[in-house]
Amino acid sequence: MKLIRFGAVGEEKPGVQLANGTKIDVSGFGSDYNEDFFGNNGIEKLAKWLETNQDSCPEVDGDTRLGAPLTRPSKIICVGLNYAMHAAESGMDVPKEPVIFFKATSSIIGPNDDVIIPKGGDKTDWEVELAVVIGKKASYVSEADALDHVAGYVLHNDVSERAFQLERSGQWVKGKSCDTFAPLGPFIASADEIEDPNNLNLWLKLNGEVLQNSSTSDFIFNIQEVVSYLSQFMTLLPGDIISTGTPSGVGFGFDPQRYLKEGDVMELGIEGLGVSKQVCKDYK
Amino acid sequence: MKLIRFGAVGEEKPGVQLANGTKIDVSGFGSDYNEDFFGNNGIEKLAKWLETNQDSCPEVDGDTRLGAPLTRPSKIICVGLNYAMHAAESGMDVPKEPVIFFKATSSIIGPNDDVIIPKGGDKTDWEVELAVVIGKKASYVSEADALDHVAGYVLHNDVSERAFQLERSGQWVKGKSCDTFAPLGPFIASADEIEDPNNLNLWLKLNGEVLQNSSTSDFIFNIQEVVSYLSQFMTLLPGDIISTGTPSGVGFGFDPQRYLKEGDVMELGIEGLGVSKQVCKDYK
Repeated sequence: MKLIRFGAVGEEKPGVQLANGTKIDVSGFGSDYNEDFFGNNGIEKLAKWLETNQDSCPEVDGDTRLGAPLTRPSKIICVGLNYAMHAAESGMDVPKEPVIFFKATSSIIGPNDDVIIPKGGDKTDWEVELAVVIGKKASYVSEADALDHVAGYVLHNDVSERAFQLERSGQWVKGKSCDTFAPLGPFIASADEIEDPNNLNLWLKLNGEVLQNSSTSDFIFNIQEVVSYLSQFMTLLPGDIISTGTPSGVGFGFDPQRYLKEGDVMELGIEGLGVSKQVCKDYK
Repeated sequence: MKLIRFGAVGEEKPGVQLANGTKIDVSGFGSDYNEDFFGNNGIEKLAKWLETNQDSCPEVDGDTRLGAPLTRPSKIICVGLNYAMHAAESGMDVPKEPVIFFKATSSIIGPNDDVIIPKGGDKTDWEVELAVVIGKKASYVSEADALDHVAGYVLHNDVSERAFQLERSGQWVKGKSCDTFAPLGPFIASADEIEDPNNLNLWLKLNGEVLQNSSTSDFIFNIQEVVSYLSQFMTLLPGDIISTGTPSGVGFGFDPQRYLKEGDVMELGIEGLGVSKQVCKDYK
């Protein structure tokens, strides 16, 4: 199943994108896509509910805005340097263990919303990433059991201000958490839709030029390893987002470096997870 | 006003601690201490409501468990190395700008709950800190306006696993986010109760021995500077917690280093913000 949320900012309703591409309003089901939904087999229950109620669900107009396909999670955990070629372009060693950092959940926007370049941000960069949505509370989970704790997958652009991240004292979080820096969607694909999350093509174009083009088969740490690893350090809650790192081809890795400016258009996609598109705007 | 939450884990109700120390149940007011409450002048409205309803509020039994005095915030932002002597004991330079990191909100517990030493954690450490509770959405706020965005203050023990934080690749978040690593409370003191948050004594005892004893007057970056600074990088939401760093005297700074073990008792306090006490337990 493909979960979407649609409507004006702050007024999103839950929906489903059908196999034929039609989008339907499932607010009649009575639950938004939140921690309770994911933690209580919401996807399974919604599928069952649709068996008898699909025909009475209103269709969603094709040009309706999409929001992020879940409500605000308790956390967004990101894995850094999880593709060997990206570690190399960043001038960093391949890590022995997953490098992790957080992104403020206040940075979440819809898949096709504008990305705002923050005040003083002259090194704003793109990062196409496969993100995991947790489906079951996970604490000290083994790699063998890790995928049982995944509800689905979603496309994420881990937008990053490199000057804030790397030149402003200490930890990376400063460059990762600006408002609009986490476009999520277009949809969450439930886990059963993705045969092998560790073997998906992903790509990003800037103004039509392909700059990232890789496969999650190049992960240093695969999804099972990442979920199990993180659960040794903190409890993962239903709805939590784990973004699994970006492949090479970010602006920081070019010589000379390339960064986003007002009017730039990012388009990105992952096999089975659709495509998103953001236009860059300066903060005003 | 002093806001408390009381009751079993996951079933906490909102309460108020009166000037004479009596605790009352204010669930009749109809709102828990969450983002909506802080963002809609909840403290002011609750004070007004109490003028006519206080006498009918049930008293809370003295030995009732206290929970953290707010519901799960969107984020816990921590300032690192914000006291010169602590930077020195950590072997780090005094930072030119605030060093910031996040702590998972899943680490929050009540002020007197047990702290669980995580599996494999043999360098678990204490950090008494003054935490700020945001009262009004803050984005690009000036230092002059910063305190207008503060709802109140709360005592926080920023428990930290140093091996996870410093020896396990990359960013600090791994050592800051374990379950139970954020005891908050006993209460949130509303901003009007604290004459000068940049001049409060704070201390921590381990098994009765005073190990931290300082004043927020030793801040490198004061509350106004921190709130304004953070708001340049992300939007602060009502209810968000900003923990302002710990003074010297943490276990990591001793020679030889001292760390927590099962049965250890931490007691900590800040002038005007009460006292909390946690017993350490091994993960089982």
